Amino acid sequence: MKQSKLFTKTIKKAPKDEVSLNAQYLIRGGFINKEMAGVYSYLPLGLRVLKNIENIIREEMNIVGGIEMKTSVMQDKEVWKKSNRWDDKVVNNWFKTRLKNNMEVGLSFTNEETYSNILKKYVNSYKDLPSYLYDFKEIFRNEARSRSGILRGREFYWKALYSFSKDEYEHNDFYEKMKMAYKKVFNRVGIGHLTYLTYASGGTFSKYSHEFQTICEAGEDTIYIHKDDYGKGLETKQGQAAINKEIWGEYSKEIDKIEDFKKKKAIEVGNIFTLGTKFSEPFNLKYKNKEGEDKMVFMGSYGIGLSRLMGAIVEVLNDNKGIIWPESVAPFDIHLINLIDDKKVADKIYQNMIDNKVDVLYDDRDKTPGEKFADADLIGIPLRVVISEKTLAKDSVEIKKRNSKEIELIKIDKIIDKLKNA
Amino acid sequence: MKQSKLFTKTIKKAPKDEVSLNAQYLIRGGFINKEMAGVYSYLPLGLRVLKNIENIIREEMNIVGGIEMKTSVMQDKEVWKKSNRWDDKVVNNWFKTRLKNNMEVGLSFTNEETYSNILKKYVNSYKDLPSYLYDFKEIFRNEARSRSGILRGREFYWKALYSFSKDEYEHNDFYEKMKMAYKKVFNRVGIGHLTYLTYASGGTFSKYSHEFQTICEAGEDTIYIHKDDYGKGLETKQGQAAINKEIWGEYSKEIDKIEDFKKKKAIEVGNIFTLGTKFSEPFNLKYKNKEGEDKMVFMGSYGIGLSRLMGAIVEVLNDNKGIIWPESVAPFDIHLINLIDDKKVADKIYQNMIDNKVDVLYDDRDKTPGEKFADADLIGIPLRVVISEKTLAKDSVEIKKRNSKEIELIKIDKIIDKLKNA
Repeated sequence: MKQSKLFTKTIKKAPKDEVSLNAQYLIRGGFINKEMAGVYSYLPLGLRVLKNIENIIREEMNIVGGIEMKTSVMQDKEVWKKSNRWDDKVVNNWFKTRLKNNMEVGLSFTNEETYSNILKKYVNSYKDLPSYLYDFKEIFRNEARSRSGILRGREFYWKALYSFSKDEYEHNDFYEKMKMAYKKVFNRVGIGHLTYLTYASGGTFSKYSHEFQTICEAGEDTIYIHKDDYGKGLETKQGQAAINKEIWGEYSKEIDKIEDFKKKKAIEVGNIFTLGTKFSEPFNLKYKNKEGEDKMVFMGSYGIGLSRLMGAIVEVLNDNKGIIWPESVAPFDIHLINLIDDKKVADKIYQNMIDNKVDVLYDDRDKTPGEKFADADLIGIPLRVVISEKTLAKDSVEIKKRNSKEIELIKIDKIIDKLKNA
Repeated sequence: MKQSKLFTKTIKKAPKDEVSLNAQYLIRGGFINKEMAGVYSYLPLGLRVLKNIENIIREEMNIVGGIEMKTSVMQDKEVWKKSNRWDDKVVNNWFKTRLKNNMEVGLSFTNEETYSNILKKYVNSYKDLPSYLYDFKEIFRNEARSRSGILRGREFYWKALYSFSKDEYEHNDFYEKMKMAYKKVFNRVGIGHLTYLTYASGGTFSKYSHEFQTICEAGEDTIYIHKDDYGKGLETKQGQAAINKEIWGEYSKEIDKIEDFKKKKAIEVGNIFTLGTKFSEPFNLKYKNKEGEDKMVFMGSYGIGLSRLMGAIVEVLNDNKGIIWPESVAPFDIHLINLIDDKKVADKIYQNMIDNKVDVLYDDRDKTPGEKFADADLIGIPLRVVISEKTLAKDSVEIKKRNSKEIELIKIDKIIDKLKNA
């Protein structure tokens, strides 16, 4: 894509009320637009990142047998009354609105009830189970404050998978598969080395749930990591995982040497949860087993906030010039920058890249080299290819990685080979 | 995909309160779930159709230079006050909700203000124009009644592109391109032969806007088609297009022979609209031309309701047994139906199809042939492949198109060749 066709421009200073680094860089780079506190639109560059994240998650969900659907935003009061989560006294961050006939409706803040209600219509027999269903959708939560950019939105983009299993045994097997799928997701989006599988409160139905926590000063959570595991991220051996602060008090009693644990701020980028029969009971979601007996469906939930994940990537992968996107989620693979007045050579290189299906943003604008380099660093595309009078004199271009200072000179007729094998 | 893994099942009777054919067939086939009147969730089969439609539209929007983004659902009151569309007395189908601090926010019912507000931050010079931007998003309209299934939802899925041009001349050129792009979309989704480019009211800034109207008794609109054009759909010569009832009164005065026009019920499946400076003025969306003079940006809007389009396809392409999906949007290309107790042969055919990237739904369930055929007809996948004891005796399968009675016998080892060349 030609940068001259991208309507967004980089901005020197972020709005004063944006205190979070993720929102500052994403707004300055032209990835998002702030609509109000906690509500952002995704501009073309931002949507490309979000879609890359979405596709990685979709691939991993499909591998474990997930089937995608698309549930509505608007939610029927009667459905949520069944599980006692309609009342604002029980769930205090509902957004609600009214139909013309004055009937109240809610805006999705999660999906347990929505799924249980749908499954109730279709599940009768053990032959109908297990079933693994997921959505990508907008989620709405009426947060009192919203100052963390896209880390915590009033409106945010979200994936949730729900598992419907015949019993705890079948559930546990899938739960372990999802743990692995989540590890793959966070490794693939480039933050696996900073992300820890963390024990958190399990609620009513299991001792623990699991969170995926990415170490970051901007995080709202606190986790405790054993010193032997620190630095290993998702490579940490199971059983030595991190502990969320919320259960640390209880957990720490069982530990010999509390001083062996490092306390770290972290962002919760995903969570997986055993629900048991908490929702199948109020929805009377049961099935007949092989012996013809009625059994309750055993559920689990598995969430990832995509917008939060995108924000977390920005929070941990950046320098003082801007974002450093991992290749897997970057808006483009290559940033081609032309510094020659006559655009003929650069146009030709660009066209050759397009013909070879290289995913390239081409800075064809009339700007100074300084402006172009600053923009490229802010936007953070992994590989920069520069053509200037100086490089042209050697029939070459300069190639530089965003996260390195090393510059390599490559002959123009070798660019495609180089990029394809990079 | 194995049908046994699809959690949905066909239903013999639609809910009593569903009077529209599209909702009846889509609910019975397991494509959608009714959450409340005018609000539906898309189940796995339904989402596959919706995604196919989305991809066709995306391809055509990108061809004309459209760039995709993703604007928020939640809308800031202050933005909509600028164009005087916040007040419920002006726009009577807003859904609104409140933040914790009691501030009102709206849920997107359209996108003109959202886009104008964003563009205002980026457009300064003639070099920044033209710009063609679009969204796929959930749209919310507080309809008093909602009885047309997914033809008119309170929540629906929607594509809108907005064009930002330097002047009317540049706008008109793009407007004609969009007309062609829309024709391609409706031809590709299989309803071009029933769809007419129709003159409708142009509002304040142009004599006419254009609607794409698909002839259908279930339609809420009425159009007048010249008898020479009737039956030609989008092949109709420009200038002899259809006329929407809303402007027919005025228009008919200029016509010699009113009796030459046929009156038909139709579904509006798309509209394209010249907005001129109606929104750029309140947002002060202007640019400096080459001479350094301030000029107002000239806008156009181009909408398609994807859920409505899906509903329209069902309304016009069906028989008394169920839906007849066009190949381009069908949830699967092939419905493989096994009628042999021992699934070995069918499993092998299925695996061979998967290995050859055939998009197949495999009915591997333990059901009677009658149930399987009835389900296949209701679900409406274009090509049915049946393996039975009878066909196996001839090393063959039966192939039948959903919209034909003709049955062809094909040798098992020739299936892939046949399907790839079908």
